[in-house]
Amino acid sequence: MKVAELLCRKGARILSARMDETVETAARLLSRENAGALVVKDTVGNEGDTIVGMFSERDVLHAIAQHGVSALQKPLAEIMSRQVIHCTSEDTTDHVLHLMHAHQIRHIPVLDGHQINGVISIRDMIGLSIEERAGAAERATPPSP
Amino acid sequence: MKVAELLCRKGARILSARMDETVETAARLLSRENAGALVVKDTVGNEGDTIVGMFSERDVLHAIAQHGVSALQKPLAEIMSRQVIHCTSEDTTDHVLHLMHAHQIRHIPVLDGHQINGVISIRDMIGLSIEERAGAAERATPPSP
Repeated sequence: MKVAELLCRKGARILSARMDETVETAARLLSRENAGALVVKDTVGNEGDTIVGMFSERDVLHAIAQHGVSALQKPLAEIMSRQVIHCTSEDTTDHVLHLMHAHQIRHIPVLDGHQINGVISIRDMIGLSIEERAGAAERATPPSP
Repeated sequence: MKVAELLCRKGARILSARMDETVETAARLLSRENAGALVVKDTVGNEGDTIVGMFSERDVLHAIAQHGVSALQKPLAEIMSRQVIHCTSEDTTDHVLHLMHAHQIRHIPVLDGHQINGVISIRDMIGLSIEERAGAAERATPPSP
């Protein structure tokens, strides 16, 4: 399956924060949305389609380990991952699975050129895997007479 | 595949903390181990095999959302999930995948009776899925003459 088709199914809502917002603000947003990561935009780019980094709940852990309590008041710009592992709409979902596995990450933004068109999560991939297994099992079952 | 076989492959190392340790201490441990969750044991049970809850990086987010900066000094007993979704060594990995999807969780402890024998992570399941796909592709390719 192409990434474009998966995005089409899940809807293209993209959780984002500005790079000058704090770790605490981003943590509250992720908690409210029950999400594991968000894309970080620049300080004026809230209407834009380009991103400057990714910020995940794992980054919250690393920030606490490094800075203790003061981590929560750090701006995302200091904590986020700037080297963003991404895919395009034309990639396959198998490729996304390999990216997640190879880089041990659970969210892959979909970038076409500089434009962000969605984020694929490991939860999306698990849903897809269950669907595929169910489909394979159905095909393997002979039709009842 | 049975859960027992997956545990055998990944090794049975189990990350744990005591219920009187703080969110900050647990966050530092998760960060150091690059892990998303740990099992919580009671205050005297560091040698025991029973658990009283699970604590994940998502719980860190929820604690910050609820308590702000003071979340980091709360004991795990206040923050952890006490209702633990678990599997047994005899369950199939397909069942584990369904549990993760249905409950939107990424770590399933393996409990046989009261004894904990491991924790299956969503990362383990992705690794398995990649292996299975590679195996299926190999079987689908006719042998070269």
